[in-house]
Amino acid sequence: MGKTAPVENNDPSAFYEEVKRLHLRPLWLQEAHAPHKLAVPHLWKWPQLRGQMMRAAEVVSTENVERRVLGLMNPGLESSGRFATTPNLVAAIQMIMPGETALAHHHTPAALRIIIEGEGAYTCTDGERLWMEPGDLILTPAWSYHDHKNEGKGPMIWLDGLDVPLIQAMDTFFFELYPGKRTQPATQADEASLSRFAAPGMRPANFTWQKNYSPLTKYSWKKTMQALDDLKEPDPYDGLRLEYFNPHTGGPVMPTIGCYAQKLRAGARTKSHRHSSAAIYHVFRGSGYSVVEGQRFDWSERDIFVVPGWHRHEHANLSAGEDAILISYTDEPLLKALGIHREEPQE
Amino acid sequence: MGKTAPVENNDPSAFYEEVKRLHLRPLWLQEAHAPHKLAVPHLWKWPQLRGQMMRAAEVVSTENVERRVLGLMNPGLESSGRFATTPNLVAAIQMIMPGETALAHHHTPAALRIIIEGEGAYTCTDGERLWMEPGDLILTPAWSYHDHKNEGKGPMIWLDGLDVPLIQAMDTFFFELYPGKRTQPATQADEASLSRFAAPGMRPANFTWQKNYSPLTKYSWKKTMQALDDLKEPDPYDGLRLEYFNPHTGGPVMPTIGCYAQKLRAGARTKSHRHSSAAIYHVFRGSGYSVVEGQRFDWSERDIFVVPGWHRHEHANLSAGEDAILISYTDEPLLKALGIHREEPQE
Amino acid sequence: MGKTAPVENNDPSAFYEEVKRLHLRPLWLQEAHAPHKLAVPHLWKWPQLRGQMMRAAEVVSTENVERRVLGLMNPGLESSGRFATTPNLVAAIQMIMPGETALAHHHTPAALRIIIEGEGAYTCTDGERLWMEPGDLILTPAWSYHDHKNEGKGPMIWLDGLDVPLIQAMDTFFFELYPGKRTQPATQADEASLSRFAAPGMRPANFTWQKNYSPLTKYSWKKTMQALDDLKEPDPYDGLRLEYFNPHTGGPVMPTIGCYAQKLRAGARTKSHRHSSAAIYHVFRGSGYSVVEGQRFDWSERDIFVVPGWHRHEHANLSAGEDAILISYTDEPLLKALGIHREEPQE
Amino acid sequence: MGKTAPVENNDPSAFYEEVKRLHLRPLWLQEAHAPHKLAVPHLWKWPQLRGQMMRAAEVVSTENVERRVLGLMNPGLESSGRFATTPNLVAAIQMIMPGETALAHHHTPAALRIIIEGEGAYTCTDGERLWMEPGDLILTPAWSYHDHKNEGKGPMIWLDGLDVPLIQAMDTFFFELYPGKRTQPATQADEASLSRFAAPGMRPANFTWQKNYSPLTKYSWKKTMQALDDLKEPDPYDGLRLEYFNPHTGGPVMPTIGCYAQKLRAGARTKSHRHSSAAIYHVFRGSGYSVVEGQRFDWSERDIFVVPGWHRHEHANLSAGEDAILISYTDEPLLKALGIHREEPQE
Repeated sequence: MGKTAPVENNDPSAFYEEVKRLHLRPLWLQEAHAPHKLAVPHLWKWPQLRGQMMRAAEVVSTENVERRVLGLMNPGLESSGRFATTPNLVAAIQMIMPGETALAHHHTPAALRIIIEGEGAYTCTDGERLWMEPGDLILTPAWSYHDHKNEGKGPMIWLDGLDVPLIQAMDTFFFELYPGKRTQPATQADEASLSRFAAPGMRPANFTWQKNYSPLTKYSWKKTMQALDDLKEPDPYDGLRLEYFNPHTGGPVMPTIGCYAQKLRAGARTKSHRHSSAAIYHVFRGSGYSVVEGQRFDWSERDIFVVPGWHRHEHANLSAGEDAILISYTDEPLLKALGIHREEPQE
Repeated sequence: MGKTAPVENNDPSAFYEEVKRLHLRPLWLQEAHAPHKLAVPHLWKWPQLRGQMMRAAEVVSTENVERRVLGLMNPGLESSGRFATTPNLVAAIQMIMPGETALAHHHTPAALRIIIEGEGAYTCTDGERLWMEPGDLILTPAWSYHDHKNEGKGPMIWLDGLDVPLIQAMDTFFFELYPGKRTQPATQADEASLSRFAAPGMRPANFTWQKNYSPLTKYSWKKTMQALDDLKEPDPYDGLRLEYFNPHTGGPVMPTIGCYAQKLRAGARTKSHRHSSAAIYHVFRGSGYSVVEGQRFDWSERDIFVVPGWHRHEHANLSAGEDAILISYTDEPLLKALGIHREEPQE
Repeated sequence: MGKTAPVENNDPSAFYEEVKRLHLRPLWLQEAHAPHKLAVPHLWKWPQLRGQMMRAAEVVSTENVERRVLGLMNPGLESSGRFATTPNLVAAIQMIMPGETALAHHHTPAALRIIIEGEGAYTCTDGERLWMEPGDLILTPAWSYHDHKNEGKGPMIWLDGLDVPLIQAMDTFFFELYPGKRTQPATQADEASLSRFAAPGMRPANFTWQKNYSPLTKYSWKKTMQALDDLKEPDPYDGLRLEYFNPHTGGPVMPTIGCYAQKLRAGARTKSHRHSSAAIYHVFRGSGYSVVEGQRFDWSERDIFVVPGWHRHEHANLSAGEDAILISYTDEPLLKALGIHREEPQE
Repeated sequence: MGKTAPVENNDPSAFYEEVKRLHLRPLWLQEAHAPHKLAVPHLWKWPQLRGQMMRAAEVVSTENVERRVLGLMNPGLESSGRFATTPNLVAAIQMIMPGETALAHHHTPAALRIIIEGEGAYTCTDGERLWMEPGDLILTPAWSYHDHKNEGKGPMIWLDGLDVPLIQAMDTFFFELYPGKRTQPATQADEASLSRFAAPGMRPANFTWQKNYSPLTKYSWKKTMQALDDLKEPDPYDGLRLEYFNPHTGGPVMPTIGCYAQKLRAGARTKSHRHSSAAIYHVFRGSGYSVVEGQRFDWSERDIFVVPGWHRHEHANLSAGEDAILISYTDEPLLKALGIHREEPQE
């Protein structure tokens, strides 16, 4: 029963022809109801990512293209033509060279930046300049204007995380250039939001905020590192793991994307589990490996890898003396808000 | 500037070849950032829907297939193979014949039922039997077990509304049959939730509810009609329009789908607007037409039509003496929760 | 140990004198830490209430006093001079005679009205006229302008419930007359809020509301009665009991006061419990008795009685054939919001 | 009109006698509806507070009394017998001497501690030891078990802030000693909550918390000072002012009490305003004065003063070179939750 072929009293072919013509489709001809798991686990090595990025700098300049970005295409989703690393999220490497500007725009996809290399560049979000250093997490939420400028001496490279595949699937992609200018004016003091949220559980008296994303737009690595060092209670599946969150409401940093920093102590190996949310990991420090549905991925500093939804996974730090640190982002807040997040330990 | 072709200093073809091999894609080769609007407005006439449904009853029985359902495929999305009426939602007609049972299962897609024809059948949701009459709205939220049984004398036909395309795009479709039985046992009194929420702003003292969907699982047409009759303040774009909502929290009936009943008074014609959410309409009563991006769709009782997102639309009731009533559902709660809902009046 | 007298090494009297002069008080001289339970259970018989109200009409007219109100003073709190029926709440009987107006004002105490007798009068709240019939619950929340007018032929009498003692204890009583007029103009249609919330789980599409109290300002007895009749699941301590709540948010009708309607079926007798919130009951229909800390109070139609906080109580309907209906209000939402509500069944 | 004497058609004295006997009180005999403002502004000088505290140590030991606490009695409220510094809040100085223990108990009043002097002592809250240093804010919320122990070499002195007057007025004071022991066992690592909330907007992944107060139970002065130094945007009425808040939800630290740290830069003078919430200030650093309803209060380091509700006030730092820092707490969250907080700039 169930999905087996129906008993067909008479030849139904004329019926099937006709309903097709009327834009009707019999549900009983549908395939099984389970995740297709077309997305596959994959790892991109940093030397190759960086190398191609440098070549891209020869091929195009930010004078000619809005963004110099290489998207990390999930091999399993590539044939569908979607710009996707997981069904809901995309990862990409972006670079701006000294003196370059990535011009100001906004769009309905939400975006975050995990800084990998460089100094002396900033992202300007809604009039607030945020200076970028490796390990920083910077938010440019849905529909907030943002531009990037490199005033330093070397290339500035970061990992972009966006919910483009989700927004594309919903066909709600809207985009606008900042009116009349390549860069938006700084209407706030530099890093103003960091001066408002400078200690845990402290904010300006009478602070008001109506938006559905974090009023703290940069989480500096220096504070994240300290918080990771302070954290004492490891999770069996993820080691010492912190969530970046909206300090004004307790919600996720943005409605669709959750961000995490985790430390795997020297020699640590986690238990295996799976969940319906997918994760993209950046190896901020150290080396080790992850096993995803039986396949081992060895990672080193600055590599990027993806664990698609409902794939069993575990992590290991091979080093005897060095901690490993992973910064990651997922669609967990989205699935939880919809009430359909599932999680399962490996038996 | 913007999306124009990049100045290419040297022949970049080798670069483009290589990044493709590494599962990287240059963002600057991407298409424009705006809704693709592949979904088109479309209207399905009731006589055809009903006629094909009756033929389907000859072709398959609920002994052989889980559900006797004809999905209303958006002509613009059909080629993609998606089971979709809009990018996020699907509409379908379901019928069970006297004595038939649609067996118990649950799934991550959220579903609702707008009853069109018949009597003497029920939906059982989480152990609560809900008897179906034309105009009723019945919820079977994500992951709640549900089955249908027709104990009446004629066919029972309703409109199914689900967020299947969204769930499929996110690859989070999970599905299970009710363990060991074709139908679930009734663990609550029939229509128990209606006896708990029987008057506006009244609920059992000490009522508790942790789920993210409405604890009221059926909105009977009788009460909806009364509320529409009481409503005095028309909306310029939608006439007298009520939202069905979660009476315990004030939120939407389910996180992804919003439901509405609206009355267009005799002779009424609304103003035109567009919004990024898409809507599927069932003509519960009366006749009239809607203009969607310049195209006129004349509708009569029981027809079903779709207005895709970001399509300008307006409605008119042609009758001199009869009100028209539309029952509809949309993905507006989802887009609002993500902070990306947009709305625009027609200038 | 604990509250026993301290060992006093030397004569501390000079110390006690001096700290007193400096406006300092040794905590160790304080009394025990438990509810004082000064408020006592008490019952006011309707014939006496009505009789005195009629006499009050001879003594004062609404031409001369803002309100013709007799407060029900808790005998245990009377000596303190507080205008209080419980530590947080007050009950009072108000009457306006045909042609009379109780002039428009607003104040920080929140108020509700449970209508007892009369017809043809209205309360106007924030520009909305609400016609009063026995059993109706009408809200005039904190700082909302309200006035009353009797356009009928007989006296209009109701029970006022307010959080005056709380507001007085916090010394946050503010009060203003409506500027320049005895009555406010009707800026909304009569009973506009009832036409917006006319069925459970239905509201005008795009309805917005920022206030912290219910947008439904009258709960008509007709609908309450129907909801009580529909309710099937009795509570062991309170019989069939409904909470009036804010249909737009799921919160209480007002932040400080919760309202309830309960039906004790013929012959019903509840179990006994106690909770830190206090309750004031109006006998809307029937007769029976309540036992409060061992003391029996026999009540009949229209009587009013108070069960102070942390007093064990149970209810009984003595009738063999008639249901009894109690309408009550409490400070439970306040105590729950503060996280200090306690409840205890009688062992 | 309004509160003028009623026209009395006949002698109403018999009526007034009779209603009094029936525990009824005519509202029209009530006094005016405005804050009574019995609480007065007052300042307690630190040398006197400390001096009396040292004498108290001679008078009683923590072997003999539960707490060695001197309450700061508002001179305007003293006659009422209430243990109150404002209508809702009380301030008190507590001291434990080396080797002493203040035994474990819990109670419905919420409490906070602002540490003034000493080192080497801790508060244990719900099994978590929190070490006390000057400027720290420590929470012992309603009904959480707490005890204090001095393992240092000198006296440990702090300011206690509680909502005792509110809880007393509501008659909901419950109190229990920790069962069977003078001190509760440490069930968590020392300062565990600080290791969970160590950076702004970061918390343990999957952290759960159901209570209505902050999961961060100590706000260390070191972090507060840094946040004050980072803050750039002064408020006209309060200078550079931070709110301590619940980092997990964005709400106040406890439902009834809000806490603030503010810096008045050298030479700063604020504008004057008033609000219905009352505030108790501890001068953590510097000297200056506040003008409260025209009365000037000169304060120096460690002094404590109270600004009652609805009293106009402004602050000034007289120093040419030194910042002044005030730590304060108020009943603002309570009044805001009830929707009755009022604020008014001085014209």
